[in-house]
Amino acid sequence: MFARYRDWVEDELAASVPVPEGVDPYVLLRYHLGWVDRHGTPAESPISQGKALRPTLCLFACEALADDPAPAVPAAAALELIHNFSLIHDDIQDQDKERRHQPSVWAIWGVPKALVAGNAMQAVGDATMLNTANHQVPAETVIRVSQLLTESYLEMIQGQCLDLTFESSTAVSADDYLEMISYKTGALIRTGMEIGALLAAGDSNSVESFSRFGSYLGRAFQIRDDFLGIWGDSHFTGKPEVSDIRRRKKSFPVVFAFSQTRGVAHAELLRIYGQEALDDEDIGRVLTILEDVGAREQSQLLTEASAEGALEALESVSLPTWARSEAEALVEFLAQRQY
Amino acid sequence: MFARYRDWVEDELAASVPVPEGVDPYVLLRYHLGWVDRHGTPAESPISQGKALRPTLCLFACEALADDPAPAVPAAAALELIHNFSLIHDDIQDQDKERRHQPSVWAIWGVPKALVAGNAMQAVGDATMLNTANHQVPAETVIRVSQLLTESYLEMIQGQCLDLTFESSTAVSADDYLEMISYKTGALIRTGMEIGALLAAGDSNSVESFSRFGSYLGRAFQIRDDFLGIWGDSHFTGKPEVSDIRRRKKSFPVVFAFSQTRGVAHAELLRIYGQEALDDEDIGRVLTILEDVGAREQSQLLTEASAEGALEALESVSLPTWARSEAEALVEFLAQRQY
Repeated sequence: MFARYRDWVEDELAASVPVPEGVDPYVLLRYHLGWVDRHGTPAESPISQGKALRPTLCLFACEALADDPAPAVPAAAALELIHNFSLIHDDIQDQDKERRHQPSVWAIWGVPKALVAGNAMQAVGDATMLNTANHQVPAETVIRVSQLLTESYLEMIQGQCLDLTFESSTAVSADDYLEMISYKTGALIRTGMEIGALLAAGDSNSVESFSRFGSYLGRAFQIRDDFLGIWGDSHFTGKPEVSDIRRRKKSFPVVFAFSQTRGVAHAELLRIYGQEALDDEDIGRVLTILEDVGAREQSQLLTEASAEGALEALESVSLPTWARSEAEALVEFLAQRQY
Repeated sequence: MFARYRDWVEDELAASVPVPEGVDPYVLLRYHLGWVDRHGTPAESPISQGKALRPTLCLFACEALADDPAPAVPAAAALELIHNFSLIHDDIQDQDKERRHQPSVWAIWGVPKALVAGNAMQAVGDATMLNTANHQVPAETVIRVSQLLTESYLEMIQGQCLDLTFESSTAVSADDYLEMISYKTGALIRTGMEIGALLAAGDSNSVESFSRFGSYLGRAFQIRDDFLGIWGDSHFTGKPEVSDIRRRKKSFPVVFAFSQTRGVAHAELLRIYGQEALDDEDIGRVLTILEDVGAREQSQLLTEASAEGALEALESVSLPTWARSEAEALVEFLAQRQY
């Protein structure tokens, strides 16, 4: 889906990330983006790749409204770079040694260089966004979309702070959790669509509708991610089986289970999540409790409700037929994906 | 000196850094900026303060050329924020537990939160730069100065990479070192002056001259910093005596000593800098070698030559008398300062 967008974004990214010269952070950026191995040797085909969700959504909003995604190509690449900056730093914070089946940047080069590489990725993202000025976009609009991008990664950062706080709490409600992900995951997705719509010179109803579409999609995407982090097939996800349980991650199903259990089951969750590390027995017990309280079904229901909300948000916008069916296919994919 | 600028920059900073609301990174930003203690309680007077060198230079360039520093106030605040973002992350990288006589951010809140707070500082810096659009500056100029800021912190990041590489090398030449600091310290100072001149609508000769002024000043500033890191009075510097020797930092005097010694003295430096930690005897030995090779005089000579180069760079620019004497006073201060 949207394969035609991928080449454009890849070309823009390739033009944006500086070519490494001796001692600089750019080999680390290229490695993280899946273009080269740890020695800087280019891969024949990408070694690992993300889903390019954020750029796809941004370009889709622009093409759906203006019949041409071109003005949004730098913005789309910028969103991908900002997303990847957050991944490099997330892996440091979470001490995750793997990302997309490969060692994470800090696991190879250590924390100080990975920290710096993440910062470079953010800066390249900012610079790429400003390249929108080369696409016959009014200068005022370039400033506006740059402001929106900055605001959205500040919201993403606020979400990361909430997430860090939740790690050491067992009293996080489902609503708290949904608010957190609306910042941490939602902000960049929502803003990406808003930026795409603005670059299409969309009217305020269209911009607002795509923004709401993005909010719902972001939630559907994250809850599906949480589902896959527990019940996903590691062959597809690239993460170890039940990895989110092993890592004691308080994703939606776990937060839901904490809120739904009483008595013995609740005490067990408290005990298990109070430990430094979980053994296989603990993991089995958590999985049983999740099944008992219906966390699996509840996660899928919430994903589907969010997917529905996303499509409703676009109802008041006049769209060409292809765009409406692409939107439906996209929502369907995000709610059902296995990876 | 330039005390009148400080209030303007402080006001712009106060308006730029969001007010903390519950769980977000903003208390950490305010703490780092010296406005509140670790509990978020506002200080009656700033708890600790930097020299505000970068904003001062940016405003000076703008006022010297346009007789009004106002259009450069958001840029000046943005430079200070970007500089402080780099300090928060530097302290993580160097595991420095103190900054300006206070515990550093990571020392209080831990690495993950400090990392996120640094990122927030950078994002607030970007947003503040874009606020230049509210000061009757043409939108194209706003985009240009935002691009320059982004490029300069990419250069700063390149300098950090070089610096990290130098840490594990004993074959760094004085020229390598000067190139590294021209990125790590110089880029933001030089670009700040360039931005100030552009916001004054200066002609290309003026912009270029202020840029060169900034390059030389940056070098003078850093070499003086290196001097103070070894021979500074801790009462003024806020750092422990001979702290840069204790930390095995390869600052200019040490790089110079490595390049000037042969035989026994060189072997001793290699042995001492090959250790994990230095005892008082090692430190005494390094200080003696530095004196023997004239590293102290050489550092001061280089600072003075850079200061002279800075003033020469401004010779071809037509400046009001006050601006030329302020430039002289500024250069004199940077070359002689005790803190």
